[in-house]
Amino acid sequence: MAENGKDTRPYFRKHVFCCVNERPEGNPRGCCKSKGAVSLRNYMKGKAKQMGLDDVRINSSGCLDRCELGPTIVVYPDGIWYRAESKQDVEEILTQHIRDGSPVEHLMLHPDD
Amino acid sequence: MAENGKDTRPYFRKHVFCCVNERPEGNPRGCCKSKGAVSLRNYMKGKAKQMGLDDVRINSSGCLDRCELGPTIVVYPDGIWYRAESKQDVEEILTQHIRDGSPVEHLMLHPDD
Repeated sequence: MAENGKDTRPYFRKHVFCCVNERPEGNPRGCCKSKGAVSLRNYMKGKAKQMGLDDVRINSSGCLDRCELGPTIVVYPDGIWYRAESKQDVEEILTQHIRDGSPVEHLMLHPDD
Repeated sequence: MAENGKDTRPYFRKHVFCCVNERPEGNPRGCCKSKGAVSLRNYMKGKAKQMGLDDVRINSSGCLDRCELGPTIVVYPDGIWYRAESKQDVEEILTQHIRDGSPVEHLMLHPDD
């Protein structure tokens, strides 16, 4: 609760959006879905539950518009973007960033990527 | 660019997620889709483009888990939640919050809602 009386608690401590958008085959941008995004998102959701991360939410989202870099994930409120290509990447993000608070530098996407 | 050399610019100045999840008819929680969420999201996306809000993104998302309060929208990095039930609500959020930076108090959802 902030001093001005407004309730500024976040509803989720970390809110993760995993792009699962599909583009038609042959589209030059590619898409996250064709790179395994749906199963990685499902894995992330299950793993977060298994880790007891009750104050976070792992959502699917529509196209995050960084198709070439996918599978893309964005973590809010931090505004940190990732390419997560494997279960190992997902586990690293969950453990090091979502649970322990330290972004995973080697998986991060930057504004000019 | 932060002083430590890390690039901390947000990729989108405001990133809006509109729940468009559908639950089976009769589910006691209801769902955002049954309350017009898809057309409201499409309206918001088109209106944002028309307003020239090039540094924001209006995304669809899976279930934000506040079904009873829908149609729900969350705006990041702010972490501000809304119930937007009409085109007028959507326009108010776009104009007052997304463009001008002042959250729309009377449409906001709070953590204990």
